[in-house]
Amino acid sequence: MKRLILIRHGESEWNKLNLFTGWTDVDLTEAGIREAREAGRLLLADGYRPQRCFTSYLKRAVKTLNEVLDAMNMDYLPVEKSWRLNEKSYGALQGQNKREAAMQYGDDQVLLWRRSFDTRPPALAVDDPRSPRQDARYNEIADEELPLTESLQDTIARLMPYYQETILKAFGQCNELMVVAHGNSLRGIVKEIKQMSNDEIIRFNMPTAVPYVFEFDDSLRLQSDRMLGNAAEIAAKMQRVAEQGKAK
Amino acid sequence: MKRLILIRHGESEWNKLNLFTGWTDVDLTEAGIREAREAGRLLLADGYRPQRCFTSYLKRAVKTLNEVLDAMNMDYLPVEKSWRLNEKSYGALQGQNKREAAMQYGDDQVLLWRRSFDTRPPALAVDDPRSPRQDARYNEIADEELPLTESLQDTIARLMPYYQETILKAFGQCNELMVVAHGNSLRGIVKEIKQMSNDEIIRFNMPTAVPYVFEFDDSLRLQSDRMLGNAAEIAAKMQRVAEQGKAK
Repeated sequence: MKRLILIRHGESEWNKLNLFTGWTDVDLTEAGIREAREAGRLLLADGYRPQRCFTSYLKRAVKTLNEVLDAMNMDYLPVEKSWRLNEKSYGALQGQNKREAAMQYGDDQVLLWRRSFDTRPPALAVDDPRSPRQDARYNEIADEELPLTESLQDTIARLMPYYQETILKAFGQCNELMVVAHGNSLRGIVKEIKQMSNDEIIRFNMPTAVPYVFEFDDSLRLQSDRMLGNAAEIAAKMQRVAEQGKAK
Repeated sequence: MKRLILIRHGESEWNKLNLFTGWTDVDLTEAGIREAREAGRLLLADGYRPQRCFTSYLKRAVKTLNEVLDAMNMDYLPVEKSWRLNEKSYGALQGQNKREAAMQYGDDQVLLWRRSFDTRPPALAVDDPRSPRQDARYNEIADEELPLTESLQDTIARLMPYYQETILKAFGQCNELMVVAHGNSLRGIVKEIKQMSNDEIIRFNMPTAVPYVFEFDDSLRLQSDRMLGNAAEIAAKMQRVAEQGKAK
């Protein structure tokens, strides 16, 4: 039996301010830290013992993972960070208020940018200070790999090589893996595992800091999936994500 | 020019209680977290930009590193954890109060256990719950590699392969590396770099959470070394470490 645990980072400063975040490296809120520790306690109480962990280059994911591991007394676990697990790039929308964007462009356009499978938000200019090409952390990555904007389809396309070649391959040495990342990068993984259509994945909202556990047989065929924690709270969290970015 | 930054973890719960800690996985205090963040701010202000980091399997070191990186806005840096960077094992003394041990065995015996180069404290029994052989985090490591007690010489012997083959080799791809570890494992590295005698390293006390920076030429010949921060505070910290474990 192989297990994969997916966790979306806890509440960030910009979730709270309702701003488009994408690749902006914003911090967790105090509530986000508490959510992360609670996820760790749930995993520990339910007997989960991951052996390797994966996260993005963004501090809201890295710090969520650090808090989960600390709450489990497993700070020593190996962690690998990859830009391929980063959130979807929201391009030039990054830093804009979701509600203001909805008033400026209309609910439908903003919903399309947030929820369409293949529509990209307006791109960042190459020399925009928000561009990843201006950020030293991405120096090792070829410019043409670094997105200036992304559709969900683009996000999934840059994520999949890492999922297939690094995360799934780690099941060769381990039975239990944990990935702490972002709403849209995790959608890519969920879509792949559950073989969802483009429409299905757009309607799926990943709740923050809820461990989502997939069990596979040794040939990596999916056997079961479940979210840990209180079902009503999880449903409320998913609803909250779905409702962001409406004008009212 | 190559740079190596060494940092000893911030104050831990058992530093505060004056207990022998060794491989016991105790947490940082609030003061220890503040010290760690201050070390990060110093590094950032002085223009240090490490590219890869190394730490032990013990949470007081892992969490110090996490706080340093977060204070530098460099949470994304790659971190490698190794048991070989762990603190010296204090064997059966682990969990005992240093002052009580001094009253029981005498100042001289305790100083010998703490500060002799090649004397080992009494060993843990193989089946002692404190033994690393009983701890799942070390499952991957052969029993005969896991110490039940250690002299400083033993600590240095198990540390050196990792220092030589992993840390120094990373200078092949990077110019600046950071190691966050423990008083005695860092002594091993300082002894090697500064070619100190056994007597000299015993008299050297690594202060907590002070970045100690070594600069090398491209052939890894030492050019300079300095500790960052206020000199009087650093001296006071070193004195405090030297005075632990006296009966009065």
